[in-house]
Amino acid sequence: MEDIFNLRYALDTFYFLVSGALVMWMAAGFAMLEAGLVRSKNTAEILTKNIALYAIACIMYMVMGYNIMYPADGNGYIPAFDFSFMFGGDNVPAEVLATSADGWYDGSYYSGMSDFFFQVVFVATAMSIVSGAVAERMKLWSFLIFAVFMTGFIYPMQGYWKWGGGFLDGLGFNDFAGSGVVHLCGATAALAGVLLLGARKGKYTADGKINAIPGANMPLATLGTFILWLGWFGFNGGSELVISNVEEANAVAAVFVNTNAAAAGGVIAGLITARLLFGKADLTMALNGALAGLVAITAEPLAPTPLWATLVGAIGGIIVVFSIVTLDKIRIDDPVGAISVHGIVGMWGLLAVPMSNTDANFVAQLIGLGTIFVWTFVASFIIWLVIKLIMGIRVSEQEEYEGVDLAECGLEAYPEFTGTKGSGL
Amino acid sequence: MEDIFNLRYALDTFYFLVSGALVMWMAAGFAMLEAGLVRSKNTAEILTKNIALYAIACIMYMVMGYNIMYPADGNGYIPAFDFSFMFGGDNVPAEVLATSADGWYDGSYYSGMSDFFFQVVFVATAMSIVSGAVAERMKLWSFLIFAVFMTGFIYPMQGYWKWGGGFLDGLGFNDFAGSGVVHLCGATAALAGVLLLGARKGKYTADGKINAIPGANMPLATLGTFILWLGWFGFNGGSELVISNVEEANAVAAVFVNTNAAAAGGVIAGLITARLLFGKADLTMALNGALAGLVAITAEPLAPTPLWATLVGAIGGIIVVFSIVTLDKIRIDDPVGAISVHGIVGMWGLLAVPMSNTDANFVAQLIGLGTIFVWTFVASFIIWLVIKLIMGIRVSEQEEYEGVDLAECGLEAYPEFTGTKGSGL
Amino acid sequence: MEDIFNLRYALDTFYFLVSGALVMWMAAGFAMLEAGLVRSKNTAEILTKNIALYAIACIMYMVMGYNIMYPADGNGYIPAFDFSFMFGGDNVPAEVLATSADGWYDGSYYSGMSDFFFQVVFVATAMSIVSGAVAERMKLWSFLIFAVFMTGFIYPMQGYWKWGGGFLDGLGFNDFAGSGVVHLCGATAALAGVLLLGARKGKYTADGKINAIPGANMPLATLGTFILWLGWFGFNGGSELVISNVEEANAVAAVFVNTNAAAAGGVIAGLITARLLFGKADLTMALNGALAGLVAITAEPLAPTPLWATLVGAIGGIIVVFSIVTLDKIRIDDPVGAISVHGIVGMWGLLAVPMSNTDANFVAQLIGLGTIFVWTFVASFIIWLVIKLIMGIRVSEQEEYEGVDLAECGLEAYPEFTGTKGSGL
Repeated sequence: MEDIFNLRYALDTFYFLVSGALVMWMAAGFAMLEAGLVRSKNTAEILTKNIALYAIACIMYMVMGYNIMYPADGNGYIPAFDFSFMFGGDNVPAEVLATSADGWYDGSYYSGMSDFFFQVVFVATAMSIVSGAVAERMKLWSFLIFAVFMTGFIYPMQGYWKWGGGFLDGLGFNDFAGSGVVHLCGATAALAGVLLLGARKGKYTADGKINAIPGANMPLATLGTFILWLGWFGFNGGSELVISNVEEANAVAAVFVNTNAAAAGGVIAGLITARLLFGKADLTMALNGALAGLVAITAEPLAPTPLWATLVGAIGGIIVVFSIVTLDKIRIDDPVGAISVHGIVGMWGLLAVPMSNTDANFVAQLIGLGTIFVWTFVASFIIWLVIKLIMGIRVSEQEEYEGVDLAECGLEAYPEFTGTKGSGL
Repeated sequence: MEDIFNLRYALDTFYFLVSGALVMWMAAGFAMLEAGLVRSKNTAEILTKNIALYAIACIMYMVMGYNIMYPADGNGYIPAFDFSFMFGGDNVPAEVLATSADGWYDGSYYSGMSDFFFQVVFVATAMSIVSGAVAERMKLWSFLIFAVFMTGFIYPMQGYWKWGGGFLDGLGFNDFAGSGVVHLCGATAALAGVLLLGARKGKYTADGKINAIPGANMPLATLGTFILWLGWFGFNGGSELVISNVEEANAVAAVFVNTNAAAAGGVIAGLITARLLFGKADLTMALNGALAGLVAITAEPLAPTPLWATLVGAIGGIIVVFSIVTLDKIRIDDPVGAISVHGIVGMWGLLAVPMSNTDANFVAQLIGLGTIFVWTFVASFIIWLVIKLIMGIRVSEQEEYEGVDLAECGLEAYPEFTGTKGSGL
Repeated sequence: MEDIFNLRYALDTFYFLVSGALVMWMAAGFAMLEAGLVRSKNTAEILTKNIALYAIACIMYMVMGYNIMYPADGNGYIPAFDFSFMFGGDNVPAEVLATSADGWYDGSYYSGMSDFFFQVVFVATAMSIVSGAVAERMKLWSFLIFAVFMTGFIYPMQGYWKWGGGFLDGLGFNDFAGSGVVHLCGATAALAGVLLLGARKGKYTADGKINAIPGANMPLATLGTFILWLGWFGFNGGSELVISNVEEANAVAAVFVNTNAAAAGGVIAGLITARLLFGKADLTMALNGALAGLVAITAEPLAPTPLWATLVGAIGGIIVVFSIVTLDKIRIDDPVGAISVHGIVGMWGLLAVPMSNTDANFVAQLIGLGTIFVWTFVASFIIWLVIKLIMGIRVSEQEEYEGVDLAECGLEAYPEFTGTKGSGL
């Protein structure tokens, strides 16, 4: 039996590591998506933000976030955390391995290090959502300081309440892979930042006009979407946590199929909605539709039939188009649509869970949604505000006009391509 | 023993899911390859086509394609199909699991959902081949309607004849991972479309001149090729179907080595052939050589030695250069070389099988090749023709001149880069 | 027991193949990184070099490199090599499988073909390092001829001394995944080439000025870095070689965590160092920091705690910035910083091993470092010199001015973007 246990442990660990690597790849997806959707003069800076926020997420989650989110103890609201993880030793506890071969393994163990690896890339995903929404006008270092608090404290706290076994978990709140814990959380932090930051110069004019500010590089945005789609198989597929028997393997496979189906539904719905509203097959809405489908299915990718998963994604794809239009109308300037894709559609994902999963109920979903939103909004708003008061969060008007690349990074993203055409609005 | 069965099932399912994810990634590869090889004014539209066709493939194969290709019953020519898959329940049949632990497992089971996931990404691959060949002048929505028929019916029918256990399989036709079923099929549908569509304006002049129309973004085309190369390890490697014992694991490993070797052979052969013919190390021919090597080995990546695999790929790399030149001479305008790479070299791949696999014979290979070609060409031609008669398949001359991006998608792929230089031929 | 052995063998083989596929993906990473960091007029050529060198590495390592590096016999200095691999048959030896079920398997077997696949992509990595350093002025075909010798002979020889069980291994030299064997080796071959080649025109002026020559495409360089980061999980994670029991699975997971942590440390350190030195958050230094962190941890990604791994990477990130500045001062022109990232930081990685791994010692590390450097430098210098004497290694001044794309490849990488702006320095 010991050999079987060893093998199960190894397979589950390997599955977790592969899933984590796919989620890590999503960091590249966000970087490419956002770099494609901003103007060329702000591209190097958004790339810098994306790679730096990923690095900060990895360091802060190692230093304290992981211990907050999965504490040795806690009362369901406040975790009893420590700083042990960064000093290592977080694989299978010795006392577990010391028991007899028949006793130590209950079919749900895998390397603790692989668990950390999988969790840490989720934190980075949540933070990546923020960078797009505040693009083209936020100070680089103010953003990075916010990332320290977000990934070390704000995200892990609400993560503890659900996945760490806290009070939201006790209430019966369902969120399989994080429509709420990851996507709504990231979008809410973004919203708080955008409200304090204001819109880009020239986006909304005094006479009520809304100017479209086209992204500089559509192939890059499309590549980013495909990367995210691929990475989502790790994001949702890995969230089943184990794969090493028939039932679990079937579950993981169903999650893959449904995740893919929802994205497909989102693409078609986004494209057709855009065609009906704008008269054109707007590529950016197809991309946002794909991402909306993925966000929507993330709260419950296991229970639906493939057809229902497609519909959940398609409804997400319709919602996202209307949400983007509406946010523009109320002058919330989100250059890449991140608040709509991850926030509004994240809410839809949470509320859709009880429609396919009979163990879920709307009341618990609403409490979870509300808790994540209120906590993240209030905590983020305070942090953003303090940063704003101390060092400012917005670049100068001159820097914004010339592009943040030169001001913040001292280089251009495409020095040979844009000539004089890329300057200004 | 039950534990062993569980683990084998889990490992084989996981292997299938990882392979499927790699093939899904090929959708990004085709999108980048094609976006790099067209002019900037037609880039957003080809990206839209690529993500939308992938979504359509996923939906149509879920609704009916999978049930056509792998029916519960059928006479080898016509499958007895139904619409059951989209309503779920397609994992391990209950009666199988209900048998005794020693009896239910014969070493070849894996999650039915993982099988669907692997198969559905193949359909998308076949359809992706089409989009490149008809680029820069076909109407977006006409293309997408064709995709509905191709992925829901044309591809699954011939897939049934071989992989679904139909008459081609009975004849001894060998096609390990789809040089014929996937690549030749896609290229043939593309050829039918191109013949009805005609060449791009300015490609061939009345005085017999052939104008080169360079692609706008070589790094993108190269990235696409590398993505496809990586994805092909899932495409061919996953087609062994199981991995969970010594023999199967050895087979999968040999497939990886040979797939890689053939691509390497194709690169060098394509590059040297181009050098000899044109006097320059034409990057696009190195890329086409890589893809040709991959297509060529796909029909039989298991039996060859590494050296023979390299040669099969190298011959593919030589063929593809001559094929591209020849198609241009007979005025078949294929902007990305898809018909040559996937069609002509796909045929070479099928015919090369008996040279390394003693179980194969040329007659069966020719019958398979001919059947796939005739079926796909006739069925596709009819669908393209009906679409042409009802709604047209070609954009107006003015739209073609201005670029299909503005006409179809209402946006530009690179609004800041091209200035006035990108317009016109 | 036989079933268990079969499963372990299959899981270890699969883990090896997945790791190898991730390392293969690094070829795309180097291609994108280098293409982003050169000027647009030299982009197509660097892409051609990258895909061609990968193909050459695969062919040469198949023909002779693998048999040199892992010979059937040898005296620790000179291997007794043959040409057997390319003719196949390199999976589990028959005599091993023929022994009794209890006897054949000692827990460390996997498919020989999977071993080749994993090893061959490492060779390509070493060679990829060279192409960046000699970019923008070396003749394409001279470079490719060097690649033949490097991948078929120079790299495999020193690989044999360590990983093939040669004298460096016997001395207790530690190099887990190749800070020395792969990265220092590649960087040293690059250095030899750069010294013979000279700097790019206009880089250093007679009055002692150093001109910055900015890369044309920062999103591409960032994408390349993310690809390399992802691929490194295969590079380091796969170098544990087996995963199929608790201890090994824990080790692989720790390697993933530490690899990621080192890269994160490198990003932050590189970014802050650049901010302090140059006053700006230089994106290219964040990217080089990430790569430096990865190179630094590669010699020992298993023994450190996550915190120590982060520090090892961070020190690498600091070193790389100073190294790049210093090489420029002594007029060694390396357009992408490859010698600093892989060579100087590779040395740091080797010397850092004894700080966390008590089985290692500084003397053995220094001997290994010195041996790899001296062998690779001398052998590479001779090959470069012979190529220079016979056919030249540098393009003409006119070709360099116009860009090597037109001269070598006969096409432009971005024909519509650069207008007249991309020409000249």
